[in-house]
Amino acid sequence: MLPFSRVAIIGFGLIGSSVARAVRRAMPRVNLTGYDADADVRERGDTLGLFDDIADSAGAAVTDADLVILAVPVRASEAVARDIAADLPADCVVSDVGSVKAKVAEALAAHIDNSARIIPAHPVAGTENSGPDAGFADLFAGRWCILTPGADADPVAVERLSEFWRQLGSDVEIMDAAHHDIVLAVTSHLPHLIAYTIVGTASDVEEVTKSEVIKYSAGGFRDFTRIAASDPTMWRDVFLANRDAVLDVLQRFTEDLTALQRAIRWDDGDTLFKHFEVTRETRRRIIDAGQDTAAPDFGRVPPKESEVGED
Amino acid sequence: MLPFSRVAIIGFGLIGSSVARAVRRAMPRVNLTGYDADADVRERGDTLGLFDDIADSAGAAVTDADLVILAVPVRASEAVARDIAADLPADCVVSDVGSVKAKVAEALAAHIDNSARIIPAHPVAGTENSGPDAGFADLFAGRWCILTPGADADPVAVERLSEFWRQLGSDVEIMDAAHHDIVLAVTSHLPHLIAYTIVGTASDVEEVTKSEVIKYSAGGFRDFTRIAASDPTMWRDVFLANRDAVLDVLQRFTEDLTALQRAIRWDDGDTLFKHFEVTRETRRRIIDAGQDTAAPDFGRVPPKESEVGED
Repeated sequence: MLPFSRVAIIGFGLIGSSVARAVRRAMPRVNLTGYDADADVRERGDTLGLFDDIADSAGAAVTDADLVILAVPVRASEAVARDIAADLPADCVVSDVGSVKAKVAEALAAHIDNSARIIPAHPVAGTENSGPDAGFADLFAGRWCILTPGADADPVAVERLSEFWRQLGSDVEIMDAAHHDIVLAVTSHLPHLIAYTIVGTASDVEEVTKSEVIKYSAGGFRDFTRIAASDPTMWRDVFLANRDAVLDVLQRFTEDLTALQRAIRWDDGDTLFKHFEVTRETRRRIIDAGQDTAAPDFGRVPPKESEVGED
Repeated sequence: MLPFSRVAIIGFGLIGSSVARAVRRAMPRVNLTGYDADADVRERGDTLGLFDDIADSAGAAVTDADLVILAVPVRASEAVARDIAADLPADCVVSDVGSVKAKVAEALAAHIDNSARIIPAHPVAGTENSGPDAGFADLFAGRWCILTPGADADPVAVERLSEFWRQLGSDVEIMDAAHHDIVLAVTSHLPHLIAYTIVGTASDVEEVTKSEVIKYSAGGFRDFTRIAASDPTMWRDVFLANRDAVLDVLQRFTEDLTALQRAIRWDDGDTLFKHFEVTRETRRRIIDAGQDTAAPDFGRVPPKESEVGED
């Protein structure tokens, strides 16, 4: 059974284009319509054959839909909601893929009348690459998709959207938007902020050349550069839209870092050792839960001689 | 030409056992002797066939060597230097693989007379796994090995040790120990300290269960857990032995983080965007230099249905 038969996707970035590809593969009979605000991206989506139809406006994309998915930076959600509101069929489910949920729910509710049909969602999956060429159908396989329906959401619509994500390979969890935003502040937003920071810091130490940072990055630094290569617009929006939760966990992080800094300054090896010992267990559990590979070094393949560039 | 013909390795951890395997493959005619302070690890090294001979003491391991490599946590270097000093052949080159170089050079010089033959080294390579089973012959391929010979080091010995590492697949760079320690504070020690911190912070937020941290770790957090699963003894020693450089770069990191924190608090999207935009370039350069894979998500293979654990 298909949970939806006419799906419209607004935004052909990594996530939007991956949803399109995954729907095409898992539910080939679904009619897919798309729209992206950028004409070049619309053309690229057409060339890639991501959709049955590419519309000329967000409103035109949704007129026949029974599911609309906003796959745009979170701060752009409100403008899209405004643009599609008049064209939205009455029983159409409206969802999104944003990394922040409370602010997006507000933005959608501000323009869309039928609040029973608004079901924000967040597939916890991604790569450091952006744009319509970066997407792939497997992106959501074995990953969690979190739905954050409001109190008056239609339970049948929630179940249909859950089934939609399950058919794309995800496990579905339902929680309240505020809880989502604190959980993701911990597991995603803080890590991205820290990664962006450290990559900047490393570039600015006068005694160390940029070339040295690059050459010796295999000592650990390179792991941070992956998520710090993520889309700047998306992440600017995430931090601003989830400000309170991000500042809260950031404050905790700073306190913890200060404690380790003090242990280093005072030659307190026991405190360091005890702290470092417990973190292994967290990684083991992530691997056991299927959320990362057990292969050492993420299973990175050592470079072949011919692939090693000149510095 | 073999740069050395009788190599002794003290310590059969990830790095020591990888050097043994890499020597065996690249220079099969070299006689390899080993010693580890832990009797169980010595036995495991024997079972794995890592060495031609496993000695009963560090001194006995080095009596015939023309190269000795200390592959122990940096704070253990001094005790090993003391233990082998009396048995060391006069012309034997003494090196190590530690992540901190100034303190190790001091520790070796405190016990070993022939300072011309002391050539500290640091192969910038590793994985999050530890122990003799974790090593592999390819670990150093395409990675840099930094030598930090003192002012009175024998240039011929430096060239022989360089050739040794090149034969293991590494590119060799020579720099002064103090400079090494600040470069690695940036590219390795700070990233590890940050990763250890954030993994601890995430475990302690009351509103978020441990199970949630694990489930939604694909949002970015899991990247940090890899290096935070590294050997606690090794890393305790690194931070304490490179205290001044680590505290210096940590101070810079904290300032940069505070600036981004302020931008979030004051809704300053431009500052965030500008910062996030430049970090992509750093990753591109690391990939171009052969120090990381260009495959999205580190080339992690999406989990198969059967591998996805229950939570």
